[in-house]
Amino acid sequence: MEPVLIYDTTLRDGTQGENVNFSAEEKIKIAKQLDDIGIHYIEGGWPGSNPKDKQFFDLAKQNVFNNARLTAFGSTRRPGISAAADSNLKALVESGTSAVTIFGKSWGLHVKQVMGNTLKENIAMIRDSVAFLKENDREVIYDAEHFFDGYKENSEYAMQTLMAAVDGGAGSIVLCDTNGGSLPFEIESIIKKVQLTLEDKYRQDKGLKPVNVGIHAHNDCGLAVANSIAAVQAGAVMVHGTINGYGERCGNADLTSIIPILCLKMDCPSISGENLSKVKKVSRFVSETANMIPLNNRPFVGKSAFAHKGGIHVSAIMKIPRAYEHINPELVGNKRRVLVSDLSGKSNVKFKARELGVELDGSGYDSSRIVSEVKRLEQQGYQFDVADGSFKILMEKFTEQFKPLFELKSFRVHIEKDKDRLCSSHATIKISVDGLEKITVAEGNGPVSALDNALRKALDKFYPGSLDSTHLVDFKVRVIDGRDGTGSKVRVLIESRDYNDIWSTIGVSEDIIEASWQALADSFQYKLSKMSMP
Amino acid sequence: MEPVLIYDTTLRDGTQGENVNFSAEEKIKIAKQLDDIGIHYIEGGWPGSNPKDKQFFDLAKQNVFNNARLTAFGSTRRPGISAAADSNLKALVESGTSAVTIFGKSWGLHVKQVMGNTLKENIAMIRDSVAFLKENDREVIYDAEHFFDGYKENSEYAMQTLMAAVDGGAGSIVLCDTNGGSLPFEIESIIKKVQLTLEDKYRQDKGLKPVNVGIHAHNDCGLAVANSIAAVQAGAVMVHGTINGYGERCGNADLTSIIPILCLKMDCPSISGENLSKVKKVSRFVSETANMIPLNNRPFVGKSAFAHKGGIHVSAIMKIPRAYEHINPELVGNKRRVLVSDLSGKSNVKFKARELGVELDGSGYDSSRIVSEVKRLEQQGYQFDVADGSFKILMEKFTEQFKPLFELKSFRVHIEKDKDRLCSSHATIKISVDGLEKITVAEGNGPVSALDNALRKALDKFYPGSLDSTHLVDFKVRVIDGRDGTGSKVRVLIESRDYNDIWSTIGVSEDIIEASWQALADSFQYKLSKMSMP
Repeated sequence: MEPVLIYDTTLRDGTQGENVNFSAEEKIKIAKQLDDIGIHYIEGGWPGSNPKDKQFFDLAKQNVFNNARLTAFGSTRRPGISAAADSNLKALVESGTSAVTIFGKSWGLHVKQVMGNTLKENIAMIRDSVAFLKENDREVIYDAEHFFDGYKENSEYAMQTLMAAVDGGAGSIVLCDTNGGSLPFEIESIIKKVQLTLEDKYRQDKGLKPVNVGIHAHNDCGLAVANSIAAVQAGAVMVHGTINGYGERCGNADLTSIIPILCLKMDCPSISGENLSKVKKVSRFVSETANMIPLNNRPFVGKSAFAHKGGIHVSAIMKIPRAYEHINPELVGNKRRVLVSDLSGKSNVKFKARELGVELDGSGYDSSRIVSEVKRLEQQGYQFDVADGSFKILMEKFTEQFKPLFELKSFRVHIEKDKDRLCSSHATIKISVDGLEKITVAEGNGPVSALDNALRKALDKFYPGSLDSTHLVDFKVRVIDGRDGTGSKVRVLIESRDYNDIWSTIGVSEDIIEASWQALADSFQYKLSKMSMP
Repeated sequence: MEPVLIYDTTLRDGTQGENVNFSAEEKIKIAKQLDDIGIHYIEGGWPGSNPKDKQFFDLAKQNVFNNARLTAFGSTRRPGISAAADSNLKALVESGTSAVTIFGKSWGLHVKQVMGNTLKENIAMIRDSVAFLKENDREVIYDAEHFFDGYKENSEYAMQTLMAAVDGGAGSIVLCDTNGGSLPFEIESIIKKVQLTLEDKYRQDKGLKPVNVGIHAHNDCGLAVANSIAAVQAGAVMVHGTINGYGERCGNADLTSIIPILCLKMDCPSISGENLSKVKKVSRFVSETANMIPLNNRPFVGKSAFAHKGGIHVSAIMKIPRAYEHINPELVGNKRRVLVSDLSGKSNVKFKARELGVELDGSGYDSSRIVSEVKRLEQQGYQFDVADGSFKILMEKFTEQFKPLFELKSFRVHIEKDKDRLCSSHATIKISVDGLEKITVAEGNGPVSALDNALRKALDKFYPGSLDSTHLVDFKVRVIDGRDGTGSKVRVLIESRDYNDIWSTIGVSEDIIEASWQALADSFQYKLSKMSMP
């Protein structure tokens, strides 16, 4: 089979999901990761709908994408005006992407009852809008919204809307199951009919370049992945979806399932094998950026996707992995989890140490002890793949290379709130450096801020000016297992930066202040040790 | 189409899922609920594998099931002994269920390399074991483990194992995609071939009663629902699955999707329409009993399954629900939700008010003032699309319908940490209800937990027992704009639940304790006002 084009809409349709929000800067970071694994199209947003998306496209102009084409999303022109007069279409052109995606209506119900439009004007809107974008030298991807619902109600009209997009010069026509209510066998049979109609059209118009047929599925029946691959079976060559299936209601088609299925099970190597092994990393990057709890049982990329509970399965797996594993987990960057020591951990630790500049071959190094200690901490909720600042300190401690640049003696934080007044917090802290003690007090916006300020003040006595350029970039708190309410264990992740560097540190505790303290102390320790290096 | 038999294995295969555990009493409660909605078979457990499952079957004998047949699960006899001598098969008979399910091997890899058995003895084990259970007057359901993997490797042998079960007297043969790696078109084509072989057999043996063909799918490719319905398309008349798709690795086929699809979209009314409207309730009952966080975007039954965010979508569904809804949510006992966000306008606010039971038409209502106030707050960092508890309170305040059920006078939180010891927190709080004051003190894991505990203690004096069932599900903290470091504005989102309901509340402040307090106070206010409603 031919490679299938992967079209990611995490940054646009994905953000329609409950709780999924990205800043323009976060969107750029995600787009870079998607580009890095060879995604063919990245839909950046809807520049006409909100200023944040416009900002994204401005930022995108300052970035280089090596593999992906960025697309801006919008709708067909408004009724009764020319395409050139439509401000939304103008915004699409101004976004500066070489490809543009617009959606139009396929379903009479929407055209007439929702929009109060006529069927005829709707057809003209589609053709004009696509043609306008083509005149502006854009590759045009046409999303046929509600195509399957429209087709089931009036196949002839639904097909006319598609042909209007083809006539306008669309390079791809994407059939959308917008409400997510269609079943795979319906998708397959309708796409086959669309292909026949297109073939007829090519026969009649010899000059017409064949268009790509795409699928855009939603997961309202739990069938978005199935509908996407059924479409590919029927001849679709472009699949729309989002990382982790984020999206409105029950989500969009999950690319973290579709890409492995296409590559490993359907002989459609959409991305390279090397990039496939980064899929889990990208999945985690997107869930971390969205601050969404990663779904443990997510196919292919979830923490439990290759986890085996004891007994018969484990002993079989040890002999013959494929006895209970449908693929080798490493192909998607995931790993088997069983209750036996996993030797591959050692090489990971070695690799990571080299990357962070920690010498593991000195005295005191015991790789199995490090691996088992890391595993124990990860079971407690630490996550070192997203906190390399803390991981570096941990490895230095294990290898007796750790030089504490300050020591905590004690702190006290006091928070007061009186009716109708805001909270106030102040912190006192006592630290020591080389046996010299220092006690300071500071206020702050909340206890962590008060602690941060007090610690900076104390450290400044010993390392004057050293922390002036250090800023906290992000501060994330996540309940690891929400079942114990406000007494649950929490993970605090702090991202800090100075002029040259960004580093992440982590703390885990049932106490949010304890966890914040751990992450904060690691962050300053990391910064100060970086400065004391030759 | 004929009705399809639904076979639930939540109580057995479901408990292989990470974190899914039930006591014998909890299993009985779940079985009663499944029976109540007309599930045809309920697999109670593996009496030979653990004492808890044995206890379940003892308890089950004291209960009446009106619709469902209870089944006990086990394996074929061990190699080299007679079926009558096998303690596992004996335990199955002793469990006292009228139907019994046993699994056997279809895949040479397992027979030879994992078990060290011969292909011939494996066939005998299947036939003998089924026959033994038939002799004991049991309806026998035969699970062909790894059938699809076995078939792909050696179709002839896989088929022989099935025919051994048919010869032994099995009433149903269930084809298992144990590793979850098969695709719908493979499932469909293999089942069609099985059907042809069975028809040949019926022609040869006129006395043979046709057996039911069933499907047992796992979700390792995100295709368990699709594989189940593909099997039904190909002629399967029994579907195995679990409530919420709980199960090992990526889970089993999710009956909360399959049942609605069969009933509403495939003309296979497996359970009655009245029972279908209880599916959401059963889903929640099982997640509550397992103490698992309910998945918001679960198809059909999730909190977000019919949630609408975009302004265009909302105004369309206000006119014509099917414009953006594939089914009427009430058919599965769910409901439409509108997410209020910066994308939205007046129509969202109106709809949301109606949904939350707030009367906007009374005095003091000014819809444009509410919309502009919501927008102002959202610009500050509030996000009401994810916090309907706080949104309800906000609208009540605007329309002068807010009845504060407690008032804060003041609180103090004190946090201490000494070198090498964990943090400790305690909170004192003073509240008043109808002019009566109460001051309490409590400890906690961190300041928010201490506040939570102190507030519960104080409220319990005024509303005894009211908050006992209220638990915090999730607690999220997000820095809105990280540029101000630990002094940045943070958004705290609290999700709380009781037996029937989940609600979210929000707080925004530069002070994490202030923000947490706002969300916490709203959550308890929401809960108490819900209880005081007529």
